[in-house]
Amino acid sequence: MIEGSAIVYTGGLLDRDDAKTAHGLIRAGRRFRVLGLIDERHAGRSVSEFLPDQPDGLPIRADVDALLADLDETPRYCVLGVAFAGGRLPDVHRAPLRAVLERGIDLVSGLHEPLGDDPELRHAAAEHGARIFDIRQPPSTSTLSFWSGAIYKVSTPKIAVLGIDCAIGKRTTAQIVTEACRADGIATEMIYTGQTGWLQGSRYGFILDATPNDFVSGELERAIVECHRESAPDLIVIEGQSSLHNPSGPCGPEFLLSGNVKGVILQHVPGREFFEGFEEVGCRLPDIDDEIALIRHYGAEVLAITINDSAQSTTSSVDDNERLAARLGLPVLNPLVDDPAPLLAAVRSFMIGAVAVNT
Amino acid sequence: MIEGSAIVYTGGLLDRDDAKTAHGLIRAGRRFRVLGLIDERHAGRSVSEFLPDQPDGLPIRADVDALLADLDETPRYCVLGVAFAGGRLPDVHRAPLRAVLERGIDLVSGLHEPLGDDPELRHAAAEHGARIFDIRQPPSTSTLSFWSGAIYKVSTPKIAVLGIDCAIGKRTTAQIVTEACRADGIATEMIYTGQTGWLQGSRYGFILDATPNDFVSGELERAIVECHRESAPDLIVIEGQSSLHNPSGPCGPEFLLSGNVKGVILQHVPGREFFEGFEEVGCRLPDIDDEIALIRHYGAEVLAITINDSAQSTTSSVDDNERLAARLGLPVLNPLVDDPAPLLAAVRSFMIGAVAVNT
Repeated sequence: MIEGSAIVYTGGLLDRDDAKTAHGLIRAGRRFRVLGLIDERHAGRSVSEFLPDQPDGLPIRADVDALLADLDETPRYCVLGVAFAGGRLPDVHRAPLRAVLERGIDLVSGLHEPLGDDPELRHAAAEHGARIFDIRQPPSTSTLSFWSGAIYKVSTPKIAVLGIDCAIGKRTTAQIVTEACRADGIATEMIYTGQTGWLQGSRYGFILDATPNDFVSGELERAIVECHRESAPDLIVIEGQSSLHNPSGPCGPEFLLSGNVKGVILQHVPGREFFEGFEEVGCRLPDIDDEIALIRHYGAEVLAITINDSAQSTTSSVDDNERLAARLGLPVLNPLVDDPAPLLAAVRSFMIGAVAVNT
Repeated sequence: MIEGSAIVYTGGLLDRDDAKTAHGLIRAGRRFRVLGLIDERHAGRSVSEFLPDQPDGLPIRADVDALLADLDETPRYCVLGVAFAGGRLPDVHRAPLRAVLERGIDLVSGLHEPLGDDPELRHAAAEHGARIFDIRQPPSTSTLSFWSGAIYKVSTPKIAVLGIDCAIGKRTTAQIVTEACRADGIATEMIYTGQTGWLQGSRYGFILDATPNDFVSGELERAIVECHRESAPDLIVIEGQSSLHNPSGPCGPEFLLSGNVKGVILQHVPGREFFEGFEEVGCRLPDIDDEIALIRHYGAEVLAITINDSAQSTTSSVDDNERLAARLGLPVLNPLVDDPAPLLAAVRSFMIGAVAVNT
């Protein structure tokens, strides 16, 4: 079992969406107790400068030795907190990670490229008694489930958090919604579908993008059925992946059809024109109306729009959100800062309808 | 390189859709020269009883020894020609496959379960100098491509053959369309996306369902881009997988968005009420109008409906197809028996439009 104290490596990218794994580990996590961060560009700064909803206290240092000098205990793990484009390790990050292994600290990586196969890193690990854990390798098919239709016996209402693009905060929104529902007296469980959910130690879920395609539907069904059976929650919230229209990996029908999900919270990034990373090939984001219509075509309803305001100016965003809410007839809110009451009302209304259908 | 003479094992299922790999190897294939079939239930019968479009001549025998006695040469391979539910080998088929290996014949399997890991089969292979090739194992991620947007530079018109359910003849239709186009003077290349395409020795493609989800879009793009660059055809025909609405593994947006496909031939099975294998859980097939509308929502047009008539009575099917054609305003035909002219006209009309868009 991989769990315990950890430092997180963000390689100069702590301020970027690429560091979403690190952000998730700082914000929430049962698997690792985070002691500090290695980030050569942002050394000495405060976590709250990057994550305004988070308290300060975690040291950010330029390298492993500077960080260890400021800690009272030696961390057991160093978690790679950045999702590099292409899932492979750029060369510039090899030396800092080797230095971590040379201090006898185990390395945990969610890259597609297995770092345990890298001769330099493997050698450093072997010499210094450290281990490398590659948690995103495709699992053996003998351990995976096919879809069976057992999902139709799950009476628990299910909501998926889908997004109009990758890396805009679906997981964070799913976690905030889960916590807000719990605080409001709704027993809620979350299904993770990404490596960060695994790294955070979530109980139910699987790593969708590393799963052989034929097993994605079955693994999703298994996670939901297990959650329903073991925890019998009032509500299940499912972390979405990618986006329905993203040509680099369209995803969504799995949740709506295979997961039999009828309610969607749609994460939106107003003002963004192109899919992230595909500006140069001219891949435009769909209109939000089109995205909502497509979700409806798959038999589900959008319950609320949650906003990532990174592409908006602060002054315009409040007005914009209100206009969008009026036009769509849906709650529109930034889950990091806004009162969750309208979202909770939409969730409760959906749950009443879902229970009525099931009885 | 796996290629040469082969026998095909169908385990009593030659008359069933489950034997679609065998049907594909009999109908078309560059990789293997098929010498005969092992099928204990259908021994002594003729291939044309099962595949009316095929000539007779291939012996069908009850076991490997009976088949070898009727052949002039010893086959190099035995290909497992059945897709068992769940991708695993039912116990009843272990002894016949062991007998094949005991004759020194290599076994080629497209099951998800690696037969090379089966102690009994591995032992038989080692004892008798035979090998086991598991061709559907997930490839190493280091050899796989991410989607890049390079697809937008492919000017060749592209048509995907999608289907309203699994295992209703998408691959066969794609091959018939490819051949009909070639016979009509259109230089056409086909992209395979299933294990049978690989087994048939097709040049461009990948095995979609064994690919880790994150690489499906990139591998599809790579196959299309390679085909466009190396063969510069007039038309690319892409074999679809599963179906848009099938909850056991929805598939389709990958072709339409990641493959930038704007034309679809939709394989339909009139009269079928439920998704195959999910009758008991009550998974209804969508209306064909709904399927067409969903394809349109992804930015593509259905050019023609191709019919698998296995759920129709022969007397009703011709009238039914004419009614459907009139209602949809599209060619509707059974590609195995009908004149391809209306389909070819629709393809040519699409190609003219596609070229106009690209110039």
